[in-house]
Amino acid sequence: MFFKFTTAGESHGKALVAIVEGVPAGLEIDVDAIDHELWRRQQGYGRGGRMKIEKDAVDILSGVRHGKALGSPIALTIENKDFENWQDVMSVESLTAEPKNPRTVTRPRPGHADLAGGQKFATRDLRDILERSSARETAARVACGAIAKQLLAAFGVEIKSHVIKLGHIQATPLWRTWEEIAAIASDSPLRCADASAQSQMIELIDETKKAGDTLGGIFEVVARGVPVGLGAHTSWNEKLDGRIAQAMMSIHAVKAVEFGTAVANAAKPGSEVHDEIDWKDKGERIRDKGKARALSFRLYPFS
Amino acid sequence: MFFKFTTAGESHGKALVAIVEGVPAGLEIDVDAIDHELWRRQQGYGRGGRMKIEKDAVDILSGVRHGKALGSPIALTIENKDFENWQDVMSVESLTAEPKNPRTVTRPRPGHADLAGGQKFATRDLRDILERSSARETAARVACGAIAKQLLAAFGVEIKSHVIKLGHIQATPLWRTWEEIAAIASDSPLRCADASAQSQMIELIDETKKAGDTLGGIFEVVARGVPVGLGAHTSWNEKLDGRIAQAMMSIHAVKAVEFGTAVANAAKPGSEVHDEIDWKDKGERIRDKGKARALSFRLYPFS
Amino acid sequence: MFFKFTTAGESHGKALVAIVEGVPAGLEIDVDAIDHELWRRQQGYGRGGRMKIEKDAVDILSGVRHGKALGSPIALTIENKDFENWQDVMSVESLTAEPKNPRTVTRPRPGHADLAGGQKFATRDLRDILERSSARETAARVACGAIAKQLLAAFGVEIKSHVIKLGHIQATPLWRTWEEIAAIASDSPLRCADASAQSQMIELIDETKKAGDTLGGIFEVVARGVPVGLGAHTSWNEKLDGRIAQAMMSIHAVKAVEFGTAVANAAKPGSEVHDEIDWKDKGERIRDKGKARALSFRLYPFS
Amino acid sequence: MFFKFTTAGESHGKALVAIVEGVPAGLEIDVDAIDHELWRRQQGYGRGGRMKIEKDAVDILSGVRHGKALGSPIALTIENKDFENWQDVMSVESLTAEPKNPRTVTRPRPGHADLAGGQKFATRDLRDILERSSARETAARVACGAIAKQLLAAFGVEIKSHVIKLGHIQATPLWRTWEEIAAIASDSPLRCADASAQSQMIELIDETKKAGDTLGGIFEVVARGVPVGLGAHTSWNEKLDGRIAQAMMSIHAVKAVEFGTAVANAAKPGSEVHDEIDWKDKGERIRDKGKARALSFRLYPFS
Repeated sequence: MFFKFTTAGESHGKALVAIVEGVPAGLEIDVDAIDHELWRRQQGYGRGGRMKIEKDAVDILSGVRHGKALGSPIALTIENKDFENWQDVMSVESLTAEPKNPRTVTRPRPGHADLAGGQKFATRDLRDILERSSARETAARVACGAIAKQLLAAFGVEIKSHVIKLGHIQATPLWRTWEEIAAIASDSPLRCADASAQSQMIELIDETKKAGDTLGGIFEVVARGVPVGLGAHTSWNEKLDGRIAQAMMSIHAVKAVEFGTAVANAAKPGSEVHDEIDWKDKGERIRDKGKARALSFRLYPFS
Repeated sequence: MFFKFTTAGESHGKALVAIVEGVPAGLEIDVDAIDHELWRRQQGYGRGGRMKIEKDAVDILSGVRHGKALGSPIALTIENKDFENWQDVMSVESLTAEPKNPRTVTRPRPGHADLAGGQKFATRDLRDILERSSARETAARVACGAIAKQLLAAFGVEIKSHVIKLGHIQATPLWRTWEEIAAIASDSPLRCADASAQSQMIELIDETKKAGDTLGGIFEVVARGVPVGLGAHTSWNEKLDGRIAQAMMSIHAVKAVEFGTAVANAAKPGSEVHDEIDWKDKGERIRDKGKARALSFRLYPFS
Repeated sequence: MFFKFTTAGESHGKALVAIVEGVPAGLEIDVDAIDHELWRRQQGYGRGGRMKIEKDAVDILSGVRHGKALGSPIALTIENKDFENWQDVMSVESLTAEPKNPRTVTRPRPGHADLAGGQKFATRDLRDILERSSARETAARVACGAIAKQLLAAFGVEIKSHVIKLGHIQATPLWRTWEEIAAIASDSPLRCADASAQSQMIELIDETKKAGDTLGGIFEVVARGVPVGLGAHTSWNEKLDGRIAQAMMSIHAVKAVEFGTAVANAAKPGSEVHDEIDWKDKGERIRDKGKARALSFRLYPFS
Repeated sequence: MFFKFTTAGESHGKALVAIVEGVPAGLEIDVDAIDHELWRRQQGYGRGGRMKIEKDAVDILSGVRHGKALGSPIALTIENKDFENWQDVMSVESLTAEPKNPRTVTRPRPGHADLAGGQKFATRDLRDILERSSARETAARVACGAIAKQLLAAFGVEIKSHVIKLGHIQATPLWRTWEEIAAIASDSPLRCADASAQSQMIELIDETKKAGDTLGGIFEVVARGVPVGLGAHTSWNEKLDGRIAQAMMSIHAVKAVEFGTAVANAAKPGSEVHDEIDWKDKGERIRDKGKARALSFRLYPFS
């Protein structure tokens, strides 16, 4: 079985849950590294209050023994620490009495699944929808992704990301080397490689919060060491760029995905865009000249 | 998404875990009914000691609110109550010191996955294999199946089962009406409709245990109210009998699956086997005459 | 992508079609060997008239070049040679005039999908159902299976089968060595290793045909060279016996599947059934003693 | 089974092949409408010579009878009319003699799968790769998509597209009403709603061709009538935008996908981006105000 993950869990339910299948037996699994990714998810200047009160931590229930994958499904949970305050509102069992504060949601919010979900599942309490459509679900995906990262690392693949635009503030230059991206401190407020742009972004966040508004932006993800031939040209649904596009576009608020500089490339002739293929060194083997940036894509989220 | 379930969990790990997808929003979920099925799984005269010490109970972590399915994935766990005695042996983290009693398994047991699994995953401690290949995994499937039963019940489908053979002792008559099967008490020692055969089976179990041996047997599962056209004739992997056969054959120790009286039928001419199709009452609609037993199949497990 | 196949095609339409995915690039594909399996499918004493008029042949449309798999999906067709007589009855396009002989089917046949399919898809002409539910679909599966056999052969896996029972006539002895099964001539009338039983089976077929009736039977499939660890103990739907059971039970008229001698084993104590595990030669490696018959299973079809 | 399609076929092999599963029984299938979509695919000013010599036409081999879907898999082929000139180069069988013109490809082309595919599948003749990675495969997808369009049309869903940028020439205004897009003639040279921009695009194509170069561009796809709740918020891989993103990004040369005006939105505050939700007319029902454009997305291909 290939690497595959399934997530479950409501935002204020007991826990988020995931099952990861297809992790090879014997792979070393570093639980702290998973928690580190959960911690990274909770950083970012201007994050809501919940990120501060709940420090997420993974609990692995199966599939790992003495630090190594067993080859069996890895089940994990991430506790919702605020659940104790939501026990009746989110109770699995039928309630015998109405909760004091039922927290029913009857007004659908723009830009969310509330309206469509409520109509689809015919519920008047939109909490039945928003508890699952909440971006908190991505915490489970981050944990699964952290395991995927450990699998990829065993093959020499590394993945980094950085913010290149927030609102109208753009980092200069946009494109950064791997080393520049790697040099961004993990507790950097916005993980932007341009310190001066980052200061302006922080100001913009403060102003926008004061005005009761929100901001969108762009971030870039870069991988290096990706082995030649990952994915397949043989069937439309095996193509790597298509699979990455689905995974990224399914993240809450992400509404555009671009590989490399595709949007700008669309305005240029092919001769300026395609990488040349050249001989490396003394003709040892052919390879891409590397004008392009390994495998990189940008995401355009809006929140 | 159609009904689908994924299980995880080692026999002496923290918990068994399952995620059930495709349960329609609004379906009433009765947690006690799931626990009742888990209880049924632990009954049966001659069961091992563990069945007595651990009373399994499901904990639903997501996908159900106020007694109704949310349409989102239902995640559930079944705690392994004995885990406290296995914490170092089954630790997720690497151990800094060897456990006092490491419970390493180096001798593969006949009739188990130990040998093949150990060779496949290149492990010398066969506990890495047997913890997952253990029949305890079926507890997670029973919980998923109990949810499936509640979904089917909403469409009027009911499922019953009974033991028809244990070792060389066979119930008489083999075939029972729905009412006879339904009349078997749920705390019946072996759920056999023939009380006299059942007494002999109990004696046989006692003798076999004393001899340090084990027994096989046959049980029958019968469904009624199955809607016409469930499954599909259009693709080999959509056919209902094929899907049931896979689900049943994947149960530990089950090594044969038979629909109706297929084995005996194989020796008879078609004219004695096929159900006639007839007009019901005054030609209101056509239907099978019902000489056959709705949807029934027998399983031949050996343990 | 793992080996996977999808079939299409009506019994009297233009052609059967299949797409096989997951065949590794570079595998040698022997088209004659596929046709040989199609020829085998059409043999067997007592087969209906159509088997004689149509000699099936595969036409590979993609995925193979110069005798080797390209790693891309292999599409194949098997022409329905009788289609020229069915052009209006099975026309893809709407008809402007009723065919002279519309061959409409309004009486559902016992033991077929006609009744259930007609109710499910709300059609009065049961030809809409039976054209697809027909056992002719297995010709497409045989072609896909012939490719699978070539893939398995590259790993040293071989598969053979023989008839062990027809009606009440049973071969003696039931169990045969690999060599005995391999020695059965491929144009043997019933591929039964017991010549005397086979003669009686032929007589029984003649009598039964004269009486306008049909017969069931049992055949056994044996594989050797199956690598240790094929399939997986880690998830219920990856288990090899479950997957084989689905594939077999989905064949038309097959209504029971048994691994080894599971039905008889169900009546015996474990000590008589489980293979012992022993050291081979001078302790080189552990293996099953081979009392059991590699991987074998029996099918109980009724037609 | 849900709507699902599988394609096969090499660019100069016998034929492209597809199997479409999950089309409901009874759906009217208009073969001419499929051919019309294949014709549309072959239009577009500046298309290569092959588009002119081969007029693609679909041949439906199964799953449709008398103009209606049977509920069984729909298999279709699109003949490669040029195959007669490629019989030895693309022969399924091993060749006994080298073709006069073997058309072996040993120099990988930039911007194609040649290099990666050749390394992955260890072939020196890159024709083994490019025959399948060729954009000709999209003809099979267009045929499958044409069937999907007929299914969607039965639910009132319509889909249109238009070109909004080619090289540096951009249509003004970018955004068009449904009526404006619908008014573009299907034999329009570039299907651009801005006639003056289109003239400049045609000039640019002529110049670029003369210079031996190629061009990228942007097109927009718009759907209307999409039912509320298509897709699902419940699992990441069921989300509609993610599934569309995969399908689009897997098209050859497409390297960016944007929903609505996501890239521009990323620079704006939320208050200017999110649709308000309002009462329609006299409070009959709630709905989106429709400031946004139903479901639209842009694609950034480069060729």
